[in-house]
Amino acid sequence: MKDQIIKTVIKDIIKDSISQTGNSAIVLRKVGDIVVEQRPIPIIEDSHCVKIAIKATGICGSDIHYYRNGGIGKYILKAPMVLGHESSGQVVEIGNAVTRVKVGDRVAIEPGVPNRYSDETKEGRYNLCPHMAFAATPPIDGTLVKYYLSPEDFLVKLPDGVSYEEGACVEPLSVGVHANKLAGVHFGNRVVVLGAGLVGLLTGAVARAFGASDVVFVDVFDNRLDRAKDFGATHTFNASKLSAQELADEVKELLGGQNADIVFECSGADACIDAGLKVTKAGGTMVQIGMGKNYTSFSIAEVSGKEMKLIGCFRYSFGDYRDAVKLVASGKVNVKAMITHRFKFEDAGKAYDFNIAHVGEVVKTIITGPA
Amino acid sequence: MKDQIIKTVIKDIIKDSISQTGNSAIVLRKVGDIVVEQRPIPIIEDSHCVKIAIKATGICGSDIHYYRNGGIGKYILKAPMVLGHESSGQVVEIGNAVTRVKVGDRVAIEPGVPNRYSDETKEGRYNLCPHMAFAATPPIDGTLVKYYLSPEDFLVKLPDGVSYEEGACVEPLSVGVHANKLAGVHFGNRVVVLGAGLVGLLTGAVARAFGASDVVFVDVFDNRLDRAKDFGATHTFNASKLSAQELADEVKELLGGQNADIVFECSGADACIDAGLKVTKAGGTMVQIGMGKNYTSFSIAEVSGKEMKLIGCFRYSFGDYRDAVKLVASGKVNVKAMITHRFKFEDAGKAYDFNIAHVGEVVKTIITGPA
Amino acid sequence: MKDQIIKTVIKDIIKDSISQTGNSAIVLRKVGDIVVEQRPIPIIEDSHCVKIAIKATGICGSDIHYYRNGGIGKYILKAPMVLGHESSGQVVEIGNAVTRVKVGDRVAIEPGVPNRYSDETKEGRYNLCPHMAFAATPPIDGTLVKYYLSPEDFLVKLPDGVSYEEGACVEPLSVGVHANKLAGVHFGNRVVVLGAGLVGLLTGAVARAFGASDVVFVDVFDNRLDRAKDFGATHTFNASKLSAQELADEVKELLGGQNADIVFECSGADACIDAGLKVTKAGGTMVQIGMGKNYTSFSIAEVSGKEMKLIGCFRYSFGDYRDAVKLVASGKVNVKAMITHRFKFEDAGKAYDFNIAHVGEVVKTIITGPA
Amino acid sequence: MKDQIIKTVIKDIIKDSISQTGNSAIVLRKVGDIVVEQRPIPIIEDSHCVKIAIKATGICGSDIHYYRNGGIGKYILKAPMVLGHESSGQVVEIGNAVTRVKVGDRVAIEPGVPNRYSDETKEGRYNLCPHMAFAATPPIDGTLVKYYLSPEDFLVKLPDGVSYEEGACVEPLSVGVHANKLAGVHFGNRVVVLGAGLVGLLTGAVARAFGASDVVFVDVFDNRLDRAKDFGATHTFNASKLSAQELADEVKELLGGQNADIVFECSGADACIDAGLKVTKAGGTMVQIGMGKNYTSFSIAEVSGKEMKLIGCFRYSFGDYRDAVKLVASGKVNVKAMITHRFKFEDAGKAYDFNIAHVGEVVKTIITGPA
Repeated sequence: MKDQIIKTVIKDIIKDSISQTGNSAIVLRKVGDIVVEQRPIPIIEDSHCVKIAIKATGICGSDIHYYRNGGIGKYILKAPMVLGHESSGQVVEIGNAVTRVKVGDRVAIEPGVPNRYSDETKEGRYNLCPHMAFAATPPIDGTLVKYYLSPEDFLVKLPDGVSYEEGACVEPLSVGVHANKLAGVHFGNRVVVLGAGLVGLLTGAVARAFGASDVVFVDVFDNRLDRAKDFGATHTFNASKLSAQELADEVKELLGGQNADIVFECSGADACIDAGLKVTKAGGTMVQIGMGKNYTSFSIAEVSGKEMKLIGCFRYSFGDYRDAVKLVASGKVNVKAMITHRFKFEDAGKAYDFNIAHVGEVVKTIITGPA
Repeated sequence: MKDQIIKTVIKDIIKDSISQTGNSAIVLRKVGDIVVEQRPIPIIEDSHCVKIAIKATGICGSDIHYYRNGGIGKYILKAPMVLGHESSGQVVEIGNAVTRVKVGDRVAIEPGVPNRYSDETKEGRYNLCPHMAFAATPPIDGTLVKYYLSPEDFLVKLPDGVSYEEGACVEPLSVGVHANKLAGVHFGNRVVVLGAGLVGLLTGAVARAFGASDVVFVDVFDNRLDRAKDFGATHTFNASKLSAQELADEVKELLGGQNADIVFECSGADACIDAGLKVTKAGGTMVQIGMGKNYTSFSIAEVSGKEMKLIGCFRYSFGDYRDAVKLVASGKVNVKAMITHRFKFEDAGKAYDFNIAHVGEVVKTIITGPA
Repeated sequence: MKDQIIKTVIKDIIKDSISQTGNSAIVLRKVGDIVVEQRPIPIIEDSHCVKIAIKATGICGSDIHYYRNGGIGKYILKAPMVLGHESSGQVVEIGNAVTRVKVGDRVAIEPGVPNRYSDETKEGRYNLCPHMAFAATPPIDGTLVKYYLSPEDFLVKLPDGVSYEEGACVEPLSVGVHANKLAGVHFGNRVVVLGAGLVGLLTGAVARAFGASDVVFVDVFDNRLDRAKDFGATHTFNASKLSAQELADEVKELLGGQNADIVFECSGADACIDAGLKVTKAGGTMVQIGMGKNYTSFSIAEVSGKEMKLIGCFRYSFGDYRDAVKLVASGKVNVKAMITHRFKFEDAGKAYDFNIAHVGEVVKTIITGPA
Repeated sequence: MKDQIIKTVIKDIIKDSISQTGNSAIVLRKVGDIVVEQRPIPIIEDSHCVKIAIKATGICGSDIHYYRNGGIGKYILKAPMVLGHESSGQVVEIGNAVTRVKVGDRVAIEPGVPNRYSDETKEGRYNLCPHMAFAATPPIDGTLVKYYLSPEDFLVKLPDGVSYEEGACVEPLSVGVHANKLAGVHFGNRVVVLGAGLVGLLTGAVARAFGASDVVFVDVFDNRLDRAKDFGATHTFNASKLSAQELADEVKELLGGQNADIVFECSGADACIDAGLKVTKAGGTMVQIGMGKNYTSFSIAEVSGKEMKLIGCFRYSFGDYRDAVKLVASGKVNVKAMITHRFKFEDAGKAYDFNIAHVGEVVKTIITGPA
């Protein structure tokens, strides 16, 4: 016990002496208050750890939520927090035990690191680990810094043809990969995507890459449906003013008179959830990706009478990031088509404000740098 | 075409000439009107067909529903229909191609025969076949007759130690088998059963036989919970006056502080559905067996945030009947403990009235015979 | 019983009176003896049955085997048999109950029809049905006739862009589909195909269509490996003069230093089986498609030490034919690239002789017609 | 870099100063040379680490192999090594982060700890991790010591009714659990176990606990088959003097004329492997647990013609140890029935010699203590 104390003291002394300032960071101090701060450059202590110079970062809706509301569900901003969790960068230093990457490698950074002792992690479902440390989810600092530390196994090398910007898009793409794996999408499936926002677009694109023969995108905005054509759509459908049953009927007709094998519900809207259940075939699967309201009016008789599966989908897990990079590298998913705006690192605050002001127009904003 | 007509005519002539009356049948003529009728004894035309002398039949809630209401959902009684679909009997005649049973065999009769050309049937999920002919589901006649025809492969031989009455209980037990297979219950699982009615009891008993280490039954009536002790209960819990969250908390405590791997929702009650979702662990499964109302207030955020599965369960499919007989024969499920009342075949009408009048007291009523 | 006899007699009388000659058929009378015979045009008796005018038929190695040897394993030619089981054609008549196709439809014909009462069929694995009636497997007649009968559900409609010749190629393609499904090939897999003959080519092509990122074809003939480039190859490798271990090492190097997720062994050669086991990753899968000798010198220690799976693959089953047509229609597998030779129906005997004489050169020979 | 050196130096100084001798250990110095040595008592450095006082240890065949031969395959004894890997004990000290156990807890110790950064570990298959540190596999020291360190998540608490001796039996039982999970054994399966040695007995017992309706044990020694009756046997069969085909035929008859759903091959003998393939049903599974010779004469035609699966089985993985403890605690597997001999810790050398001298008689020898 005494020894433990000695060790801790010594460790702290060493740490302080070599810490330096100089790590520029985009910090959310409180609701509506983003600043650029100088923080200490992080030190590699764990031998499996890697230091990365951040190069590009996507702005996610959750970041904006913290900026505007100071919290999401049980995650409440109580102290200043670095933003960002969709980043790519370049390896600048590696721990002694690192074998997977080397200095100079370009990497996508998986932003959530679970407890390696938890059952969920050891079962291959670390996204369910209750001790997950996820970047930019309070109180964990995010990736919008100059230098960021990550365990080596939460980095995926970017092949030569893949840019840092594309690398930053791997995070949301991984959600689509995860959803498709949960659903077991494979060659020949008839798939419906409800909601053609960013996650819907990427999920549909992955479905097509996984072999779906039909991918029907449904939304109420034509500009979103137009974009779906770059993301694997075989059909698009504007659902404005239709009841859930009418929507289901129309989509069934688009699918040649058959219901869908798999539905991805990416809107969270009550009517879409209802329509999704109706358009799923007997024995089929609906994956709920959008969160929606806590309670919805839900036809559980549809689920039991058709013996269908409703599967929840939460972030991504083992292998998803790697597959997402493969999808980008192979050209099967063109993530560049989703990048609509770019800001410099030092203008991150403006980027957030812009995203809020132009919500209908923005698909993905990339913050480049820091230089 | 001409030949086809000739053949049909000849077939009908033959059929008429050899048809005989003498097949006593319990017929629901219209709401509230059950009679014993003499119908023609059926003739084996299909070479895979078997004629069975019915020996015991369970009364199911759906029969009672038709008796009282004349319909369930889209199934409407439009003409007189023979009741009954939970039967066992003895083989009295077999078609030319029959190899699975012989005259004298004692059998449980699976009451739903699908179209053998449908995709669902050929995938091993014939319960989802849209062309299913299910006994005592309008307009298909049921099994409460003296002689009944069935294809050989929808019969399961009863081993020596299994009585006809137990054979009649195989039908509801198969629902429990099917639900457990859908959920993938296996050794060591922690299982919760919401609703300790007949289906709940049998589903929990199967879970235990499949290796569940914990089976918690939840109900609001102590007499039902007492009975659960004969059906594999490791814990029982009376949920009266608790909120969904309180119920979930109490059950979690019974499970040693952990949520359930698998929840079987057999009540259809809104509060139970809600509690079931709450008490399912992250990554766990809830199977909805009770039908409940068409729409319920449902926490889809619970499903997506925990990445859980909600699986609908409809009847039973390939192999379930066979496993149910094995469960009875091995003594792993004691279906006799659920038989509370018996009536003779000719008193079937009284049996239905009794069931309605004593709903809280009846678990399963068996109609024996006809003599 | 008496009635049964009457019915059978009448049925036979009707059948004889309307039978006609005029069904040209390619008949293998005995080893080395193929003739064109006139047989009765078949009559639709089963209401789910369809009469098809055959338009194109592929020659399969098994046909040639019967022609040369009079048998394969337990299947011995004891009486004249119509050859052919890789056919497409046009619907000319349908039974009363048929709903899936109509007169005029162009279809691929799945040549093996199982017993619909068997467990295997009802489990979705009808390829394992012990009562399978498979075209051109003694004593069942094959498809090289003018008119052929098939149940409606063993026909798959050919979309407009797919020719009869391509339709005839669906049969071997279905073997590749089945093998890929058994192996569970999905996006990002690293796949090795040992043996670049017809089945190897198609299996590799399907793997690529199913999302494999790497498909390494291995053979000892460069002309076969050249062809593999049209069938999804990302790498080809000539294994001449290498030991099993050397081959495994070379392939691993092609895969960037990693062993394969999935190996398809399509050669049946001892050295390839051995190399296949060595190049499969720990926890990976090898599918054995080629039959090879009854006994081989086999490293079971490789299987157990790496906890790998070895899966046998036999023909195809539910859904495979349909997916094969989808693969052709979508352009994902270009079966035309495998058609090297064509003969007219009346020259079928010559076609068989040609195939034997030019075995190294032929990939797939199509017999067109009859006119 | 300089800081890293400072830290390492300080760590070593602290470590030395608090190291103590007094950790009695059973050390294999070289072939045939076992001694009791005093080694330093280990110090908890990792905060998830636990110090355990060893209470009981089973002798495994692999230990004996190292004792007699100095190596197994690629694992060669190059320096003295502590023996033992089947141990239970009592927690005497815990690291700062430990939450799963507390001082005083009685635990079974899972002896192999994988690299937590490897893909295999993160997929839930850590038994395949190439960086596994497995007790008493050179150069890793084993568990036959007074005090042993383990990460908290590789310990399973022993419930009150489970003794330390039973806890020591959890290791081989976990192999049986793992094999059954790989095979997917569930209610109603017909199972055959070839070889009624320790692993065969436990694997069969687990199969029965997992719901197998039939468990046929096959061996050539009657005393082993007699013992099988305590391990779930529904049938036993002495295969002396039978060919593989005769054996397969006899077992099929015991199974009522049907082949087995699942075969566990636990002998490694050529004839058993051959018989196992023959007695597996079409579409069935054989799990190879015994290692046998590197190469065997193997009927791959049986595998492909029946579309069966051959699955290798290596040690155990996530969840298996926990399930094994549950099986013991529930009374479903009576591991006490396999303990035939006991030796004191200080007599461990004699225990090894005894095991070698009485190989036909010993099932499991337990070394108790140290005191």
